[in-house]
Amino acid sequence: MKTQKISLIATALVVASFFAISGFNHKMGKDTKKLRHVVLFKFKEGTSAADIKKVEDAFAALPGKIPQIKDFEFGTNNSPEGLDKGFTHCFFLTFDDEAGRDIYLPHPDHKKFGEVLTPHLGDVLVVDYWTE
Amino acid sequence: MKTQKISLIATALVVASFFAISGFNHKMGKDTKKLRHVVLFKFKEGTSAADIKKVEDAFAALPGKIPQIKDFEFGTNNSPEGLDKGFTHCFFLTFDDEAGRDIYLPHPDHKKFGEVLTPHLGDVLVVDYWTE
Repeated sequence: MKTQKISLIATALVVASFFAISGFNHKMGKDTKKLRHVVLFKFKEGTSAADIKKVEDAFAALPGKIPQIKDFEFGTNNSPEGLDKGFTHCFFLTFDDEAGRDIYLPHPDHKKFGEVLTPHLGDVLVVDYWTE
Repeated sequence: MKTQKISLIATALVVASFFAISGFNHKMGKDTKKLRHVVLFKFKEGTSAADIKKVEDAFAALPGKIPQIKDFEFGTNNSPEGLDKGFTHCFFLTFDDEAGRDIYLPHPDHKKFGEVLTPHLGDVLVVDYWTE
């Protein structure tokens, strides 16, 4: 019985370690290579806060519509370095691979988002990269 | 003894679930707000592949020297959209907070990296944002 108990505790530890390591690798993004999609916006001068919010909300709604977007976050620039070239918004999307991106880019819901964005868009910059 | 066994299995499941949920939250970046630091480079025309590699390696060595860098990844642009404005490299750093960034920016090892970078730097763009 003592052996059984030890074996159960050992199993518990192995299972827990597996998830702990898996969680750590997720955190560090080292479980698998991911394709990052970095999008910077500046808005036209005079764009109202309400219109900017509409664009943010429309972009933030895309992960619920396009399952190829595996992770999504965005925020507004707060760098003290003054190297932003006027870009105020960064959207950071993750795809599993180029096939996911290939579905996303021409996706009807992405196009619809473009219709919300375009009237207010001052400039846009996009770079994509594979995590190492 | 049967009760003890069940209790051990239950403990194992609770522990495993804790790590699984923790891993999930890490993956989704929802455990805590993080300060992202997005750095884009283009290199001077004619910069050799060896010099670019030297810059990449010097940047990638910083997380080992500056513990306030909580996560680090970088890659080279492969976006098919043609909206990169000539930027070829994206470095994506994470800090816990502005205090971490305040230590990083003027850090002697960051300055030393600048000496490796500057002779080859064509242009740089930086935006920072808080994850929501």
